[in-house]
Amino acid sequence: MSKKKIHKPVPVSGFPEWLPEVRRAEQMWFDQIRATFERYGFCNIETPSVETLDVINAKGGDGGADVDKEVYVLERLHKEEGDKEARLALHFDQTVPLARYTAQHFNDLIFPFKRYQMQRVWRGERPQSGRFREFYQCDIDVINVDELPLHFDAEMPAIIWEILSSLPGMEEEKIQIRISNRKILMGFLEDWGVPDIPAALRIVDKIEKVGKNQTFSDLEKVCSHTEAGDITAANIITGLASIKASSSQDLREQIANLQISPSSKKFSEGIEELAFVMDQLAHLPEGAVVADLSIVRGLDYYTGTVYETVFLNDPSYGSICSGGRYDDLASNYINKNLPGVGISIGFSRLFERIRTQGKLPQLGASPATVMVACETEEEYSNMMHIAQDLRQNNINVETYHKPTKKIDRVLKHADKKKIPYVWFTQFGEVKNMTTGEQTKADSKKWKPET
Amino acid sequence: MSKKKIHKPVPVSGFPEWLPEVRRAEQMWFDQIRATFERYGFCNIETPSVETLDVINAKGGDGGADVDKEVYVLERLHKEEGDKEARLALHFDQTVPLARYTAQHFNDLIFPFKRYQMQRVWRGERPQSGRFREFYQCDIDVINVDELPLHFDAEMPAIIWEILSSLPGMEEEKIQIRISNRKILMGFLEDWGVPDIPAALRIVDKIEKVGKNQTFSDLEKVCSHTEAGDITAANIITGLASIKASSSQDLREQIANLQISPSSKKFSEGIEELAFVMDQLAHLPEGAVVADLSIVRGLDYYTGTVYETVFLNDPSYGSICSGGRYDDLASNYINKNLPGVGISIGFSRLFERIRTQGKLPQLGASPATVMVACETEEEYSNMMHIAQDLRQNNINVETYHKPTKKIDRVLKHADKKKIPYVWFTQFGEVKNMTTGEQTKADSKKWKPET
Repeated sequence: MSKKKIHKPVPVSGFPEWLPEVRRAEQMWFDQIRATFERYGFCNIETPSVETLDVINAKGGDGGADVDKEVYVLERLHKEEGDKEARLALHFDQTVPLARYTAQHFNDLIFPFKRYQMQRVWRGERPQSGRFREFYQCDIDVINVDELPLHFDAEMPAIIWEILSSLPGMEEEKIQIRISNRKILMGFLEDWGVPDIPAALRIVDKIEKVGKNQTFSDLEKVCSHTEAGDITAANIITGLASIKASSSQDLREQIANLQISPSSKKFSEGIEELAFVMDQLAHLPEGAVVADLSIVRGLDYYTGTVYETVFLNDPSYGSICSGGRYDDLASNYINKNLPGVGISIGFSRLFERIRTQGKLPQLGASPATVMVACETEEEYSNMMHIAQDLRQNNINVETYHKPTKKIDRVLKHADKKKIPYVWFTQFGEVKNMTTGEQTKADSKKWKPET
Repeated sequence: MSKKKIHKPVPVSGFPEWLPEVRRAEQMWFDQIRATFERYGFCNIETPSVETLDVINAKGGDGGADVDKEVYVLERLHKEEGDKEARLALHFDQTVPLARYTAQHFNDLIFPFKRYQMQRVWRGERPQSGRFREFYQCDIDVINVDELPLHFDAEMPAIIWEILSSLPGMEEEKIQIRISNRKILMGFLEDWGVPDIPAALRIVDKIEKVGKNQTFSDLEKVCSHTEAGDITAANIITGLASIKASSSQDLREQIANLQISPSSKKFSEGIEELAFVMDQLAHLPEGAVVADLSIVRGLDYYTGTVYETVFLNDPSYGSICSGGRYDDLASNYINKNLPGVGISIGFSRLFERIRTQGKLPQLGASPATVMVACETEEEYSNMMHIAQDLRQNNINVETYHKPTKKIDRVLKHADKKKIPYVWFTQFGEVKNMTTGEQTKADSKKWKPET
């Protein structure tokens, strides 16, 4: 036999994969997130990994150009001449597919449409960037026809808090959901005639990073030619962007202190909406949510409530869960007014952080609770019966892969896989690997200790 | 406001997506398959959606050319000049990624490595073909270093039988797992010096479709110049390919009737192995598994046991679950001998069949067990407390989206979503939507009837 050439495989940067023991922790996270989403009545959908390039590009908003760069398109390796088909691209988020899905299946969906979606998304980052190019997001959105009650704007952070404060490995993390309402800043900027609103929002967005003074001087440049004069507008915007309020009352007081007049209808609406959301969340622990008027969510399509979520001890890590309210999800596709509100957990980024910090639960490489072993080939079918008895009682069982008299080897194998019980067919006994205790047991009745 | 142009989205052929109520059934299937795989001690892994084109093409075996045609490669839409990176392609199965994964993480894995994998795979079919281009597969494989006990060859069909006979909607389906061992036919063909073995196997593979007579005459052409003469070889191969045996004894008897001599070591080994596997599966219901020597699994890399699974009332639908034993999983990547055995459920194809036949459980579009409603804005926080009480007890709860006095509307909405209970905050009562009964209830204690 000729010796084959060996090509040791190398990982592809940006496309993570885990060992079984890490994957088990990832499954726990997914299971818990899914269970919580369903506890609140969200149904699941999955969309194809691809959309036509038309759909991907129709995202709209100012983000288009950026996103465009990051898209992976698909080519069949051996496309035949004359095959006419739309160009397909991997989706880069779950909102664009949701918009297309909602429009396409509009007549078959029940509104308000409350859906969750936990899929991979792809971004064509430069391989050198060190960023994930394939990762999971976990999204919830509620969409209704014509009008969507503001209660849902409060339901989003309540669900997210429940999840993020209880994921295994996250229990000690201090996280904070920061909420604003874009109507407040937008109302003010429009009202005062600030000419380059996107520029002003970009500056506000960076206040935590650059500080209040830098923000003020940056805003002065953008606001200097506004009708309302220079110093004042920049002053007030800086004041607004500095507000962090723990309750609706606190929010109202801090805004009153800025003595803003005149205030537009939109501005007042934004404050009322944000105050309402904060009131609805008053039952959460102190610091879990905060009204933070510096949150603008870049140049996205949000029109009201906006959310970001940070690690309080490391806000510069950026938002791990973001979203907001939009006026109209799918106006490109359907002649219906479909307002919605949604939020997205950046699952893989969050998981990777907790993993690299060594905080994940240390699980074994096997889902089995019991390893069953036997000594001789003759005992094999007896061993299989024991295994089946246990499985009937919903116990996960792995059989040791061959009959052996070497008990030490069996125990070592179970230990390596962190399987908590070993069942010896030859003795009719089960060994608790934690306590070392070994007792007679009946496979039809036995249950693991909890 | 200017009127936007509406582009009604069209489905992309070959990329299925489901409404929420169908997706719920799909989730039930995935949950059940996963639970059974774990019941047998298989751990889960996921690999990236892509592999480098090198890895995809290194599949080897005679299937290479076919597969090559079906591959989707990725291109970044706006790739910068000078970016050097390996070409990436979406995986078309889960075996190629498993081989690469096992070699890459060899030192961190525990052998025998028992893993399951339930991911999407992609095939670049022509859009006109009507075939899925994106679909799920559910695979289990066991891989060991140097030697893998034959018991595992029997564990595969036992697990698959447990799953396929109990998936919701599959209960009435008569399915059959057909098992052969390639050593039997290969041993015979090599022993008799048949020159074009792949051609002979291709003919055997079609016996169910074309019948015994056609098979015989096709084989005559391929075998006519063999040392062992013409008629006899074609006769015996047709005889072998016609064997369907319900037990090891039945198998041995039918083979004895063919009076084959001489028989090579490989041929005898194949019979012994197949007989062993059949013996291990004797506890399954009659007809669940059958030794069927026409099963060759195309020109794949299998070297021993091979499996296919068919609907007994419609075998022409093709195999819904296939696999087999291979001598060496990853010889391209690592200088270790890694024999394995595995089987793969063609999940999406199977699910689509049961769906289009209307046999899936008819689920509602919501995972909620209870819909909670209230009459006035003042009652809203009371309603939220009720909902939270129920959620604390692991009950899935949806709140009706706004306070309303229109009880009929609430009931209609719950009915449309097939939510089995409606809780009226204003009455402190819960209505059983099936029986119509409405009773006082305490949200801290209430449980749904099962």
